[in-house]
Amino acid sequence: MEKVLVKSLYRECERYADQDVCISGWIRTLRSSKAFGFIEINDGSFFKNVQVVFEDNLENFKEVEKLAISSSLTIEGKLVLTPGSKQPFEIKATKIVIEGESSSDYPLQKKRHTFEYLRTIAHLRPRSNAFSAVFRVRSLVAYAIHSFFNERGFVYTHTPIITGSDAEGAGEMFQVTTMDLNNIPMTEDKKIDYKKDFFGKETNLTVSGQLAAECYALAFRNVYTFGPTFRAENSNTARHAAEFWMVEPEIAFADLQDDMELAEDMIKYIINYVLENAPEEMEFFNSFVDKGLLERLQHVASSDFGRVTYTEAVEILQKADKEFQYPVSWGCDLQTEHERYLTEEVFKKPVFVTDYPKEIKAFYMRLNDDGKTVAATDLLVPGIGEIIGGSQREERYDVLLDRIKELGLKEEDYWWYLELRKFGGTKHSGFGLGFERMIMYVTGMSNIRDVIPFPRTTGTAEF
Amino acid sequence: MEKVLVKSLYRECERYADQDVCISGWIRTLRSSKAFGFIEINDGSFFKNVQVVFEDNLENFKEVEKLAISSSLTIEGKLVLTPGSKQPFEIKATKIVIEGESSSDYPLQKKRHTFEYLRTIAHLRPRSNAFSAVFRVRSLVAYAIHSFFNERGFVYTHTPIITGSDAEGAGEMFQVTTMDLNNIPMTEDKKIDYKKDFFGKETNLTVSGQLAAECYALAFRNVYTFGPTFRAENSNTARHAAEFWMVEPEIAFADLQDDMELAEDMIKYIINYVLENAPEEMEFFNSFVDKGLLERLQHVASSDFGRVTYTEAVEILQKADKEFQYPVSWGCDLQTEHERYLTEEVFKKPVFVTDYPKEIKAFYMRLNDDGKTVAATDLLVPGIGEIIGGSQREERYDVLLDRIKELGLKEEDYWWYLELRKFGGTKHSGFGLGFERMIMYVTGMSNIRDVIPFPRTTGTAEF
Repeated sequence: MEKVLVKSLYRECERYADQDVCISGWIRTLRSSKAFGFIEINDGSFFKNVQVVFEDNLENFKEVEKLAISSSLTIEGKLVLTPGSKQPFEIKATKIVIEGESSSDYPLQKKRHTFEYLRTIAHLRPRSNAFSAVFRVRSLVAYAIHSFFNERGFVYTHTPIITGSDAEGAGEMFQVTTMDLNNIPMTEDKKIDYKKDFFGKETNLTVSGQLAAECYALAFRNVYTFGPTFRAENSNTARHAAEFWMVEPEIAFADLQDDMELAEDMIKYIINYVLENAPEEMEFFNSFVDKGLLERLQHVASSDFGRVTYTEAVEILQKADKEFQYPVSWGCDLQTEHERYLTEEVFKKPVFVTDYPKEIKAFYMRLNDDGKTVAATDLLVPGIGEIIGGSQREERYDVLLDRIKELGLKEEDYWWYLELRKFGGTKHSGFGLGFERMIMYVTGMSNIRDVIPFPRTTGTAEF
Repeated sequence: MEKVLVKSLYRECERYADQDVCISGWIRTLRSSKAFGFIEINDGSFFKNVQVVFEDNLENFKEVEKLAISSSLTIEGKLVLTPGSKQPFEIKATKIVIEGESSSDYPLQKKRHTFEYLRTIAHLRPRSNAFSAVFRVRSLVAYAIHSFFNERGFVYTHTPIITGSDAEGAGEMFQVTTMDLNNIPMTEDKKIDYKKDFFGKETNLTVSGQLAAECYALAFRNVYTFGPTFRAENSNTARHAAEFWMVEPEIAFADLQDDMELAEDMIKYIINYVLENAPEEMEFFNSFVDKGLLERLQHVASSDFGRVTYTEAVEILQKADKEFQYPVSWGCDLQTEHERYLTEEVFKKPVFVTDYPKEIKAFYMRLNDDGKTVAATDLLVPGIGEIIGGSQREERYDVLLDRIKELGLKEEDYWWYLELRKFGGTKHSGFGLGFERMIMYVTGMSNIRDVIPFPRTTGTAEF
């Protein structure tokens, strides 16, 4: 008898009509009366359950009808189409094998749980409807990203996780060591002797693969990274995790305009991919997590994203008939309230803000001709604020070196990064997409802890 | 004028014949005489270079002819088919824009360099033929893996990199901390006060995502991880890196046979994908890195992999007409020399060795009915030895708990792992593929440092 995934049954139920099939899965609900019962079973391959009907002619009827939720079963039976009812088909069981029993203290009972509670059972929460939907969508978005770049010939580059370079310079870092912290080796002048550490130097977890990706863009032209990055920031918010995944494309012979086009194409590709490949999950989010989600995503996928310079944006915000908590003036960093006002109330769609003051952006961003701003862009989206940050990179050796010195960075830390500008440098650009922010955006989930299988945040590294 | 990638020109040169095109790229070679010159240019999108012919009617002829290798250019010109010559077409330049000059001290000159030397310029080595081929193939293999699992409906799961769990238990780990090592917080009884560390406990870098992946397999049925893993082993060999990527599928309602079928299908899929999508690169490896590579890979892709139990393998090795450095007896771990003898001389193809003594395998592997062996398998391949290790997992709560206690592990560290066996556990299996080993296998490269963009090994974390 054919062992089959529930997804195949849903996608091709006509083909299986009146045939014997064999499925395995976990009980989501079970109710029975004297002579027969119903099991809603889910095998993980598909968002929806299959209804299984069983009768007292089963030799283990008495055992089956007493099974606890989440018991695992293998079921043989005939698939019968049920036109007009809620589900397109059901299975009339001829044999039920109990693979593994569950018990009455199974913590994920049918009643609704808070997301907070479900975080404490992160090993079981993917069995719930909401998290089954979240983590399948997470997987699909990852695949969409790889497909998008692969179709365009981008080379996927694994940049290092452990970095001995201080050069990334963004935010607080985690230190990586094999030294015995009870007995740290010291030099004669009473400093920590990092020569005795595993790598012979101080090392940290990466905060961005960009600088390494630039090396590869200047060889392969179009590359991207997609891997974990880390921030040791003590910010206990719904939007920050200590460990998160980033997507960082880097393109050579490309300026900020090319960069924004790539970002816009990618965002639309991801949204269309998810709408097409996870209709059941997206319907669920739209109904139970974030009403209006589908409409918003469809609108984004079919809009031309807005473009506005930072200077124009500041003027718009200063003229706005709205009281902001933080006042706006040229030179200040935009706060989430400003970003959301721009994208939600002014443009009513995603908008690229470009050409920020150099003082509030990183050293590697290309200085514009005005000498005051850099060729940087942030993409703001309704409901979230910033989702992408990118820039054209400074390709002029002298200008870059000046910036490094101006900011008091150490030239020798950047020898290889500077060399990229010496041996056939060219204009190039790139951006970073926070992968979890994107998942939150397409699912409507509002806490980053609920889109990461086992989240790592300040004070929490469970499982 | 159409800006175009060199890959497109090669794939569709007929379409571009006699048309004006615009390409950008880096000079690989340049030679000129008084009135004309030739540039071999590479834009990173394709393994092969394009020949550009330029004449002294270019206004910047004098500048162009003096350019150093690796200078970046944008070239406009007419594509002319050149049937009968080495390259199918060339470009007659009408305009050459110098994007960025290189200089005569560019370290990657035309002469051949050793791989050892090229490691010291890891920021530039992807511009060489060999590393351009390696890292494009690395990208393609990664994509093949995602495609393989996506086509089969597997959910891609990002398991944590930072782990607070000691439960993985395989090998030496890197510690992750934000404590000030010059001033480590201590408790009253003079122990390190990990409550003051970022996560409120001691944390390390993961050595495997398997245990976390099992949680997801028991929700989604078929899942895989693909991410970085870490070993702080002090082994300075050509096969070990401190940071490497692993692929770990985990499948529910599946036994060891299903597991081996999946592994065999995956290996063949990857090989076929690379042969089809990187013919130029594979030809290069076959000619310059590992003669016989293509034949070996084609053979593997079309063979049924062998299967032998550990017990049978030990008998074969004991009867072998060969002097081994390490003698073989039942109960011992197989060494690389044994593994290679089995796969290269006995089976002459990949072979799964199964059912190892429980003493030499991990606690989570399913105990066979003989009480002595476990349902584990290693896949051995010619030229490498072990490339995959997998097992059916112990799904019986009591048997698993006994093993945990027997090995002196702490039951409380495994509370969630044990719960998977309590709430609808079922037979399930999985394996781990060392991604870099696979890249070495398909490229013929013999040092792991040469298949990782910026390798991290004992004493080395450069760039």
